[in-house]
Amino acid sequence: MNSHLPIGIFDSGVGGLTVYRALHEHLPNEHFVYLGDTARVPYGTKSLATVERYAVENARFLAAHGIKLLVVACNTASALALPAIRSELNIDVVGVIGPGARAAVKTQRAGRARTQAIGVVATESTVQSGAYTAAIKKADANATVVERACPLFVPLAEEGWTDNDVVRMIAETYLQDVRASIDTLVLGCTHYPILREVIQQTVGDSVQLIDSGEATAVEVKSLLKEKDLARLTMPTGALERQLCDDLDHFYVTDAAERFSRVAERFLGSKPSRLEAVEIWGEDRLRA
Amino acid sequence: MNSHLPIGIFDSGVGGLTVYRALHEHLPNEHFVYLGDTARVPYGTKSLATVERYAVENARFLAAHGIKLLVVACNTASALALPAIRSELNIDVVGVIGPGARAAVKTQRAGRARTQAIGVVATESTVQSGAYTAAIKKADANATVVERACPLFVPLAEEGWTDNDVVRMIAETYLQDVRASIDTLVLGCTHYPILREVIQQTVGDSVQLIDSGEATAVEVKSLLKEKDLARLTMPTGALERQLCDDLDHFYVTDAAERFSRVAERFLGSKPSRLEAVEIWGEDRLRA
Repeated sequence: MNSHLPIGIFDSGVGGLTVYRALHEHLPNEHFVYLGDTARVPYGTKSLATVERYAVENARFLAAHGIKLLVVACNTASALALPAIRSELNIDVVGVIGPGARAAVKTQRAGRARTQAIGVVATESTVQSGAYTAAIKKADANATVVERACPLFVPLAEEGWTDNDVVRMIAETYLQDVRASIDTLVLGCTHYPILREVIQQTVGDSVQLIDSGEATAVEVKSLLKEKDLARLTMPTGALERQLCDDLDHFYVTDAAERFSRVAERFLGSKPSRLEAVEIWGEDRLRA
Repeated sequence: MNSHLPIGIFDSGVGGLTVYRALHEHLPNEHFVYLGDTARVPYGTKSLATVERYAVENARFLAAHGIKLLVVACNTASALALPAIRSELNIDVVGVIGPGARAAVKTQRAGRARTQAIGVVATESTVQSGAYTAAIKKADANATVVERACPLFVPLAEEGWTDNDVVRMIAETYLQDVRASIDTLVLGCTHYPILREVIQQTVGDSVQLIDSGEATAVEVKSLLKEKDLARLTMPTGALERQLCDDLDHFYVTDAAERFSRVAERFLGSKPSRLEAVEIWGEDRLRA
């Protein structure tokens, strides 16, 4: 395996860009190939079988491009499809849920005598899967976990409504009955870091927020080092890395223009190398 | 063509149920086959080519079940894909945009000396397509049209937040700068009739709301009569029709349980005949 190969990242859409940003910051020598499955977004309301199929197709697409490691940035796909993806690929596959769960347990332990629960906010599917609760219990069998689905957070983030009365009122509605019982809160959806400030204000400063994407970047850094796959120098020709520069390659399955617009909202800059890829073959329906 | 065949309806998901409800009310003798493409929802953020492909696949699926007329309940598909669907099918195909536009012009003319614009609220894709403006201008070359995308209305309706401070504040944000200039407002997305009350309160009682689904049901009734395709008696064995009874057949491409839950929220009852249909074949990605 060549350490000069890029790291692959896929997400159901644009949300995984927050994971890309975290990876980029923690691993300035690495370059990335990102696939946003914008033709089939969102995954959060789809069934296990469908999410598995889409995730495996995305993983194969990135593997065919030559990557040294795959990050499944989508929480829903991480919750439902990691075993299916791992059985297809012969490289390391890292989801966001395990790292997020472990970081939450570590933060809670470091912070105080634990008397309260770890909260998790995520999409409907992720909450229904119970994947965060399972991963947190695996890291700490005595932990108490409270999960809460916040379906309106994704459209709010994509709309760019990150700091107005509407988003504050919605956050209040979702979080008012959990905040008293938690001291740590996992942002279990890639879009939620965009709303980080308002979420922090709503739960109060005493609650520690955990960004699963951030936690994943930290674990990927250790893993690359351990496997001797870390790149020790900048990619050829690069003097300084910037988010979305032309060393990182972005693919979307649909609506590149919209992706680019939302990317700018999330990252402050548009991808310089962005390609729409065709979905080949036919979906045929039969009763 | 047999007048006893059902009417086909497809939508990208659950929103088209408001069109189904309108058809059901206006055509109590007819029965329906509904397809909600829940595996690929939403269409409102997807490209023309993708929406066309999905729409044609949905239309073929319903045509294969034997229908006498197809209603494209999805505004985005009506805006982008009617020509493609019509070239595939040899039955009448009715979209929701033409009927909505004609009803708006008729209502405005009947109501008062026209001094103001016709407003249209819809998804991002529908607004970008300009299909409502074109259809309204076709019905009345002198009309002025103001379109406004309201992307958060769909997730609000699906979340069931139809009457709280959040939805009122969001409606206010979207509509405050258009309400003074309009006297008629088209609900150009199938989900929006669910938010009808709050939209009416926001724009004020002097603005007439037009439900495109309702307008479509009225035109379908005339068309069936004109073509001698109207069913003159109830379907065999039926004494009284109820929404979602077992004479109407519902298909979804994914997540039937969620569809059923949202259907109950929209219609007051769950479909008694609901089947998840398999998407057959493979999407393969290539760069």
